[in-house]
Amino acid sequence: MPKAYRELNPPARLLLGPGPSNVDPRVLRAMATPLLGHLDPEFAKIMDEVKELLQYVFQTQNYLTLPVSGTGSAAMEAALVNAIEPGDSVLVCVCGLFAERMCDIVERSQGKLIRVDAEWGTPIDPQQVEAILKTSKVKIVAIVHAETSTGVLQPLEEISRLAHEHGALFLVDTVTSLGGVPVKVDDWHLDIVYSGTQKCLSCPPGMGPLTFSPAGAKALDARKTKVQSWYLDMAMVRRYWDQERFYHHTAPITNCYSLREALRIVYEEGLEARWQRHKLNHLALMAGLQAMGLHPLVEERYRLPSLNSIRIPEGTNDARVRGRLLQEYGIEIGGGLGKLKGKIWRIGLMGYNATPQTVRTFLVALEAVLRSEAPSVNPGTALPAAEAIYAQG
Amino acid sequence: MPKAYRELNPPARLLLGPGPSNVDPRVLRAMATPLLGHLDPEFAKIMDEVKELLQYVFQTQNYLTLPVSGTGSAAMEAALVNAIEPGDSVLVCVCGLFAERMCDIVERSQGKLIRVDAEWGTPIDPQQVEAILKTSKVKIVAIVHAETSTGVLQPLEEISRLAHEHGALFLVDTVTSLGGVPVKVDDWHLDIVYSGTQKCLSCPPGMGPLTFSPAGAKALDARKTKVQSWYLDMAMVRRYWDQERFYHHTAPITNCYSLREALRIVYEEGLEARWQRHKLNHLALMAGLQAMGLHPLVEERYRLPSLNSIRIPEGTNDARVRGRLLQEYGIEIGGGLGKLKGKIWRIGLMGYNATPQTVRTFLVALEAVLRSEAPSVNPGTALPAAEAIYAQG
Repeated sequence: MPKAYRELNPPARLLLGPGPSNVDPRVLRAMATPLLGHLDPEFAKIMDEVKELLQYVFQTQNYLTLPVSGTGSAAMEAALVNAIEPGDSVLVCVCGLFAERMCDIVERSQGKLIRVDAEWGTPIDPQQVEAILKTSKVKIVAIVHAETSTGVLQPLEEISRLAHEHGALFLVDTVTSLGGVPVKVDDWHLDIVYSGTQKCLSCPPGMGPLTFSPAGAKALDARKTKVQSWYLDMAMVRRYWDQERFYHHTAPITNCYSLREALRIVYEEGLEARWQRHKLNHLALMAGLQAMGLHPLVEERYRLPSLNSIRIPEGTNDARVRGRLLQEYGIEIGGGLGKLKGKIWRIGLMGYNATPQTVRTFLVALEAVLRSEAPSVNPGTALPAAEAIYAQG
Repeated sequence: MPKAYRELNPPARLLLGPGPSNVDPRVLRAMATPLLGHLDPEFAKIMDEVKELLQYVFQTQNYLTLPVSGTGSAAMEAALVNAIEPGDSVLVCVCGLFAERMCDIVERSQGKLIRVDAEWGTPIDPQQVEAILKTSKVKIVAIVHAETSTGVLQPLEEISRLAHEHGALFLVDTVTSLGGVPVKVDDWHLDIVYSGTQKCLSCPPGMGPLTFSPAGAKALDARKTKVQSWYLDMAMVRRYWDQERFYHHTAPITNCYSLREALRIVYEEGLEARWQRHKLNHLALMAGLQAMGLHPLVEERYRLPSLNSIRIPEGTNDARVRGRLLQEYGIEIGGGLGKLKGKIWRIGLMGYNATPQTVRTFLVALEAVLRSEAPSVNPGTALPAAEAIYAQG
């Protein structure tokens, strides 16, 4: 007898891991919209709106701003392979897994990799970057703004200044910052910036926002070699996203619908209010976790509001705690990645999920689980500490 | 005053171009399903079902069968860049735009490109392939099964036999054939086969089904160099789609939901019935078009049921006819690509759209438009000719 495949009916989840975050119901409904063709004039209008709204969330006037047809990782690859020609020197600032991934892509692109390293859980020191820029000719300085593997928010302005002072392009990963904390592409002079959709934009994964400053775009035009990826070659992709609408590949129509709706929600809320909301709920969550007796991985001034990394208490079974949260409460949080595996939990408060309701729900659930799994935590303390933050507003 | 972005409300379309096709409402509803995390055990079950269902539609037992996180063009790139190492000889059979794209990717992958060409609108002659295989050491023979730019259905079995006789892998593009006409990966000994979702599977674009035979997978294992694309590197992607669930990139969750539902619909209908349905409606459409006095581009035995290419009548304004169909009837058809631009129309009957209702709706609309745009067509003849085919069944 043939196997039966049942109707799709996944269990409900509160997604408080490193992403995806929960998607606003408005975005989910937008995805149920019947398709237009990828060359339909009506779809072209939607593409233009997506570009405009991306310019808004990136805080940029960059003409070359569009979403690539893949997840944030595809946008990382697009950013790097379009910028790098064989032999180009690329300085990558590494203090987490996603910068390691950049290094891998630099090498696959036949770039000359130069690394600046910092301990995972700390940011990059601009002085180290400067030291290298003074002695080596570097085409691109690449950095992760919000390291999803550690929860560090990297200050960018000083390194941006240094990069430009030494004639380099500044390439920035904003996958976990865009829409949750300030990302000011023009004010901070960022040249090539990409992101994902499933973090603080609260949109399903599947597209990767990407923007090039005039200098970044000029570097594309100046290439002597073809981009190694056909699919992500901006020289072609831009002709489709531009008024020319020259066919390159079939855009993921439904993902464009969802991105437009998610960006429209950001636009309606306003970026300032949204950043403030992320900050407040982050502070409340952290206050609750610390009251419980848990310790943040990251020093206070570098903490990323959208991704909160907390040390797992000594002797606590990582997998069992996360498993119980998932099975008993339907709550997903992230474990550590790479060298932080088994050492931290990563708690995302992104976009739609950055609310007091979410923070309360999570704190009481975690406390209930840790009562038996980590007897050292202080019961009854988390919620009052969070409420005190909300009372201050 | 800030610009207002209105609620998404695209006009209704009957998508009879080269894809996307209209999506079954069941698939649209599946896309409105709240997200699971990409490492959630419940999502892992969905991934396994997608793999099983892909094995069914590909008619294969291939263990390495999965959808890549991009459109069909990303799957083309994935197939080629994973198979090719610098210096490898790749024979590409070219008789349309999509094979030209393969050539471009081969060169970007530093493969040694060898071409066999046939006129656009005709298939590749196996004897030409054999002549090259006899004189050159070729690692991969690559071909398009269903040329979306011409509407030719390429017979595969003879070329497959020749490729294997000469120790080459056989790589096949089934973007516009999978789910619409027979694609028998195991029976025909196809080694590396990819497809898209937005054609005969009637799923929104955004994922690219891909399968490797044991010999194809062995070629991946035998690589001495890293795949040039990090995002599409099957050595890593497969570890996530396998039971290991090793994190690579965040899968496009909603696209997986939609693909599962679209494949479930194919599975419920059954491939044989589906192929038959595509064939019958294609014959009815062609009978109607020919009765009207229009001429197919492709010889009868090589016609692709899912994409019908028809010559534009002498003196007819291509853009105006397509524009009127779109504006007055909400019907999209495709124009010619590349060297066939302005010479043909491409009429897709794919998946959900391969129905008598669609064929009738289109024929009467086209006839109404051509009455004024191409007075040479015979009014009142198309529908009876199509009905005669349906009457025969």
